[in-house]
Parts: sequence; structure tokens; C-alpha cells
Amino acid sequence: MNALTTAPRRPLPQTFIDALAAGFGARFSTAEAVRAHHGHDESHFPDALPDAVVFPHTTEEVAVIVALCREHGVALIPYGVGSSLEGHILAVRGGISVDFSEMNKVLAVHAEDMDAVVQPGVTRKQLNAELHGSGLFFPIDPGADASLGGMAATRASGTNAVRYGTMRENVLGMTAVLADGRVIRTGGRARKSSSGYDLTRLLVGSEGTLGLITELTVRLHPLPEAVSAAICTFPDVDAAVRTVIQTIQLGVPVARIELLDSLTVTAINRYSKTTLREAPMLFFEFHGSPAGVEEQAATVQELARDNGGEDFEWATRPEDRSRLWQARHDTYFACLNLKPGCRGITTDVCVPISRLAEAIAGTRADIAASGLTAPIVGHVGDGNFHTLILVDPEDAAEIERAEALNRRIVERALALDGTCTGEHGIGFGKQDFLLAEHGEAAVDAMRLVKQALDPHNLLNPGKVIPGL
Amino acid sequence: MNALTTAPRRPLPQTFIDALAAGFGARFSTAEAVRAHHGHDESHFPDALPDAVVFPHTTEEVAVIVALCREHGVALIPYGVGSSLEGHILAVRGGISVDFSEMNKVLAVHAEDMDAVVQPGVTRKQLNAELHGSGLFFPIDPGADASLGGMAATRASGTNAVRYGTMRENVLGMTAVLADGRVIRTGGRARKSSSGYDLTRLLVGSEGTLGLITELTVRLHPLPEAVSAAICTFPDVDAAVRTVIQTIQLGVPVARIELLDSLTVTAINRYSKTTLREAPMLFFEFHGSPAGVEEQAATVQELARDNGGEDFEWATRPEDRSRLWQARHDTYFACLNLKPGCRGITTDVCVPISRLAEAIAGTRADIAASGLTAPIVGHVGDGNFHTLILVDPEDAAEIERAEALNRRIVERALALDGTCTGEHGIGFGKQDFLLAEHGEAAVDAMRLVKQALDPHNLLNPGKVIPGL
Repeated sequence: MNALTTAPRRPLPQTFIDALAAGFGARFSTAEAVRAHHGHDESHFPDALPDAVVFPHTTEEVAVIVALCREHGVALIPYGVGSSLEGHILAVRGGISVDFSEMNKVLAVHAEDMDAVVQPGVTRKQLNAELHGSGLFFPIDPGADASLGGMAATRASGTNAVRYGTMRENVLGMTAVLADGRVIRTGGRARKSSSGYDLTRLLVGSEGTLGLITELTVRLHPLPEAVSAAICTFPDVDAAVRTVIQTIQLGVPVARIELLDSLTVTAINRYSKTTLREAPMLFFEFHGSPAGVEEQAATVQELARDNGGEDFEWATRPEDRSRLWQARHDTYFACLNLKPGCRGITTDVCVPISRLAEAIAGTRADIAASGLTAPIVGHVGDGNFHTLILVDPEDAAEIERAEALNRRIVERALALDGTCTGEHGIGFGKQDFLLAEHGEAAVDAMRLVKQALDPHNLLNPGKVIPGL
Repeated sequence: MNALTTAPRRPLPQTFIDALAAGFGARFSTAEAVRAHHGHDESHFPDALPDAVVFPHTTEEVAVIVALCREHGVALIPYGVGSSLEGHILAVRGGISVDFSEMNKVLAVHAEDMDAVVQPGVTRKQLNAELHGSGLFFPIDPGADASLGGMAATRASGTNAVRYGTMRENVLGMTAVLADGRVIRTGGRARKSSSGYDLTRLLVGSEGTLGLITELTVRLHPLPEAVSAAICTFPDVDAAVRTVIQTIQLGVPVARIELLDSLTVTAINRYSKTTLREAPMLFFEFHGSPAGVEEQAATVQELARDNGGEDFEWATRPEDRSRLWQARHDTYFACLNLKPGCRGITTDVCVPISRLAEAIAGTRADIAASGLTAPIVGHVGDGNFHTLILVDPEDAAEIERAEALNRRIVERALALDGTCTGEHGIGFGKQDFLLAEHGEAAVDAMRLVKQALDPHNLLNPGKVIPGL
């Protein structure tokens, strides 16, 4: 555990509290319950409560908050819905949580240009609900109904990324408040631009350490004319992974391709009362014209069969698809349910697709050797997979073994030219891996950028950059 | 004309010259002819010769050059093939040109992962030639046979971007030498990552001002099973643009969709000895499975017909397609040929697709009012179009009128939520537009990043950031 979590804190200056209370009234709170709600996420890290929480409504209000924090040397931690898996929202150095849940308006939908302008507290499901009837949708789906601001900040992706890209590709521009209190607008609504440094992509994935996102322009996509989904079981994980690799290499524009190992299927059956065959399984989804979808599906079914795939089951009716994907989305909680009272330590490596079989086989061997319970699921079309290591939060030795397992999985992924995090971010726990992955010179370059834009280290300190 | 071009220069220190001559032998030159070759690009800006030129072979050699330049306070200007349209490679503050043409090896092709690792001097045609037989290709095609390092530096795109993205989406990682002489590796070969700040995207489009790119990992794509191309003429530009907008909004995954106005078609006929009908014209290319391509083509043909499109002509044989696209690629020189001895001032705005008709109609009116000759072509699937304003390089008044026309076109694009440059970059001439587009606060943020990474302003000074 990082000693920073228990470092003594300077209490918030009374003049600072008074100023925020005067400006925000009931939208500013130092109440224990409110702080507690903002002091934990879905990671296994211990709670770290902010000293206060504020709920801004506008970019201008965020700028006021930043100016006050700057004046008083108080740290700011942006908060979306708290679904982070890497401790992003923990107030490890104290400071105030800036909760964006009341900045939750869809400001504009430009159907003709296939983009939407949203406030950062809008969640992905909310946006898709508001897009109903427009013929468009926002595809990025990390499972949780995360806020779009949080998803941008962590460069989130999820099940659809193999076809539609990640937040990196789907954020066109944003409004952000920098550490100096100034408001910048980055990017724009044009589909491409060579106009200056890519500040949009610099902020996407910066985890709240370079600026507070107060508005986003996101890319929308036409709802596919036809959608079909399928599941298929395999004799072993290798056979499933081979099918994935061949699908990608053939250039089949599959929309989703998810791997579940047999332990995960067992967990789903128990949690969601399904009767899936308890074997390694692939979930597929195909988007396109009716003919295109049929063509994709036929190709993939043939590949699956060649690799020993069985029980290819189709779901073309929306309700059947929803049930299938709901089960997939419930995986996280279904797996936690395997060991009541446990917490999950989620690994998140991503490797080039040619190394995926090797990465997963090695991971399975590591899990077996560790004696831990750790189901595997993955957005394998991208080479990204997770293990959810189930640990007793009171058992320090077990947590240590879990962390050692995570480290082995990451080290293997890096040796295979992969990354320590495909979609969850560095947050509080992975700074050492950041260094191992990119090397000292590149991390120093990141540090220079951070220090240039946030010289007093007020924006989400203790995250991303080692030593800051 | 920017006064900087004629600012007095400090001659290169003799110790610096001696050190480079000793280290690089014949690969270092201060000869007038070599300097002259590196002192102009395809822009209309006056020549600005570097004080010397060096031809490195390795990342380590580039690091040595940077260290020497740092020691002696000498500026560095990276040079690819000199096809820049915005003066990127002009030595407006003196310094040495670092010519990457001898760093031209394809270092690795990972066919299974659909990526390639290349040195920055590899050109796009060279890469595609080396990919022959692999079933893969590199789609980004800005027309010129540019170097991949130069394309990354300017965030280039071109005709295929509507389907395959720009260099922003197709550079997965790079090796670069920073101003402090340190070598960084950014990104990686995994398809996605949330690991730290996106230094790859920060360098893509930084125009040599943040680091010298010495290696790139680029994304490859499966060669489409079927390709077909078509041209279609329209009664007027508006009808052609309407067809484009409807095609994009229907989500047809068209690979290329290019607009040529009738003056451009005339220029092509004269230059390439073709007999195309001299009317506004769209060039289409469709990639996919045989059935998919047919489906796309049928949809687009129907849209074109509804908008008054005539003479829909198909080219499915590779040689016919090549002839068609060669004619399209020759547009730049064909248009210059309309007015022998002229130079071209190329505009490069990009707007949201819903505003494209308005942007082009306004541009046409501006051209008519200006009395200048300025054919229009565009990668209109992205909302990006160019006018090539033909000017007598000796006629200062005409150049001034052309610049005023460019300014009007940019101002309209910005008013329509667009960008001043879709793909050519800011370079030497568009710093004022950068400011108009992004605002002072955002440009200040860019300046802070630049100053953090290059405190002595040695990397391509006088480009991108106003006042540096």
C-alpha cells in the first residue's frame, strides 16, 4: 500500500471553505457521508476520502473552483460515477472532489454530422437514450454506465472498440479548465484537422491530471441496419483465441468479440440464472447491412467450426441479444459473487493479437500456480483481456499474492510488446508499470508536460506520473 | 511575408561544423546546391536555405546531432521529401536540415498484427511496394509520395481518410529524439492502451517542433477483397456535394470520395490527355467483399442519380482504376499547368459535413469575386477541400489578393465550426489562423508544452506556435 494514502493532511483553510459554501450553497459539502461516497471506487484500494465535495453546473463554475483551489493550494479530483478500477478518484493527497453528476446535459446532437456535444456527467446509457429515434448511437461500452467525462479521462473502450475504436478515436474535441483556471477549447467538429498540437488526445487518457473536462464533442455512428449476435463454445481457450486471431486477420469487421473462460461462464450461470454450457466461450456481434452481417457471420462460423467450436447459437431478436449482453455485462459482479465478501483486483493487459494465445496461456498457468480464483474475460478482438483476481480484503497475504500475480501478467504482456493497461488507466496503482512500459525518458517527457500545465500539482495528484 | 525569413543569421560555429564533418563525412554538407535543395518545398513561400544539411542513418546519430545542436544553439529542421505545402521545411531562422532520406528501411512487417515498423524516410509508395504479396496495405495517401515521418509530423491524410482515418489513427507508436537529446519510445504495438499521456498523438502533427521522429509503427489494413471505382458528373457542385453528404450520412463505408470542379477536370484533360466531361465530378472508390462493394456502389449510384448525376462510369479493372486515380493525383500539377510559370497557394479547410455545401458555395463566390484562377478539389467525404490559387510569383499584388482569398475561406470555415487546415498543417504561414481557431488559452497551452519539451526553441523554430 502506498504510504501517501495515510500521509497527514493539512485541513482545508476556513476561508476556502467559506468561499465555496458561499458560492455553491448546498452544492458544496464537507459531510462525512458525502465525502465517504466520493472516497472509494470499484478498485481494491482502501478508501481515501476527499476533504469536501462540490457539484458544479457550468464550465465557469469549474473555473471558479479551480481558481479558489489554486489560491489556497488545494488539490482537485474530478469525479464521474465512481466506476474507476484503478483508484483514479481516491483523494490520496486530500483535496476536494469535483462531482460532475449535475453537469449531465446533452447540449446538442448534430445528426447530420454524427456528433453530439455533452457535459461530462452524461453517462453513455443516457446519451444513447437521448439519441433514440435519431438513427445514431454512441458505441463505446466499457460495461459500467460510466460518465463520458470519466471515460474520456481514462481513455476507456470496452466491447465495441474492435470495430468503433476507443475514446481516443471518438472524442472530437472538448472544453477543459486548466490548472491556471483558464478555459480551453480543443479540437472541433471537423472530422480531421492538422491544426496545431493534439490537445484533445493529450487530455483523453490524462486521468484528470492535466485539466478538468467540462464539455465533450463525441462522435456518433449510424445504427447498423442489421445486427446479429452469437455465442459459441470451444474445447479449450486456445481454440477460442485462434478463432479470434483468424477473424481479425481476415479483416472481418466484427463489432464485438468477447472471450469468457469456463469459470466465468459458471459465474454467469449462477448470477444471471442462465444455462450456458460451462466451457470457454466467445460472444460475437455483427453490425452492417443484412447481407453484410450474414456474410460476416458465415465467415466466422466457419472459422469457429474449423477450431472445434460447438453449439453456435444465434440471437437476432433484440431481446435475445440484450439478454446475452446483459449476462456479459454482469460478468464483473457475477465473478465477485463466486466468493462472497471478496473484492476484485482486475488486470488489464493488452497485447498484439499475434501474441494473444501466448499471453493468455501464460496467464492461465500463473493463475493455476498462484492458487487464487481468477476468472478471465476479454475484449479479445483488440488483444485486451482481464483477469478478476478475487481476494479477501482482510487477508493481506492473499492481496500480496494477487498483486504478485498481476505483476507477472503485466511483465509478460510487456515482454510480448503489449501494454499494462488496455482501458482502465494507470491511476493510483500502476505508476511502476508505466515506467516499465515506456522507459524513463518517455515518462520524464510526460512529467515535463504535467509540470508545464500544472506546476503546483493540484490536478489529481498522486495519479499517473510516478513521484508527483 | 514574414520578416523572419530575412532576419540576419549567426553563421554556424566552426567547431560545430568540424564536429559534424568529422562524424558524418560526406553525409554532412554546407554546399550551396545541397542547401538550396533543402530550402524550398511545394508552398509559395520564398526559399529559406538551411546553413547545412546532414543525413543520419540511425536514431543514435540523430541523438548526436541534437546534442551538438543543443551545445551550439543551432536549430534543427527535419526534412522528408520536401512535399510540404506550408513551408514546414524552410529554415526561416537558419539552422541545419536533418534529411531522413537515408533512414529509409522497413524494419519489420508484422503481418499477423497488421502493423509495420519503419524508418521515417520510407515513403508511402515504398512501404506499399514492400508489402506486396502480404495481403496488407498502408492506406494513407496524401497524393505526393511523401515520407512517413513527414506524414506523421503533419498529421497527413488524403483520399482514403474517410474510410481508414488519418496519420492520427494510423501511427501506433514511434521513437523520437527530444530536444534534450534523449530518445523516447511512445505508444506500442497493442491496438489500444490507457497507459499514460498520449505522446504518440502529441508528436503526430507537431511538425518537427517537439521531437525528431526516427522510427514509426504504423497500422496496416487488409487489402480489400474487391475494389471498384467510379466517376460521375453533376449539373453543379451543389448536387455533387449533396450526394457526398447523403452517402456519409447513410453510413456507406466508402473508401474514397473526391470532388473536382469543372475547372479542375479541364486541367486534368489538358495535362493527362484524358477526355473526361468537363463538369463537376465525383470520384468514388469502394472497398470490401464482392457483395459489399456491389451493395455500396448501388446505394451511391442511386443517390447520385437522385441528385442529377450523369455518366456514372465504372472502373473495376486495376489498370483502369490506376489511370483514374493517377489523373486525380496529378491534379496539383495539372492545375499549376493552367497558368504556366505560376505557383499555387493551396487552401485546406475542413468543415463538418453538414456545412460543406455552404462552405463550398461561399468559396466559389469568393473566387469569382477575386478574379483569381482557383480550381477546387476535395476529400469531401471528410468535409475537407482545397482551392489551388494560381499566382504569378513575381506579382506581389496578386499574391496579396490570393492571401486575402485564403483568409476569407478560412474565416468562413471557422465560422462553420471547421478547421483552417484539414491535412497540410500550420507550418510557417498559418499561425494566425491557429490562434483564430483555438483561441489564446489553448494556443498558450500548446506553447507551454513546446517550451517544456524544447526550452531553447531549437526544433523547427518559427513553425506552428505564434511568436516562437
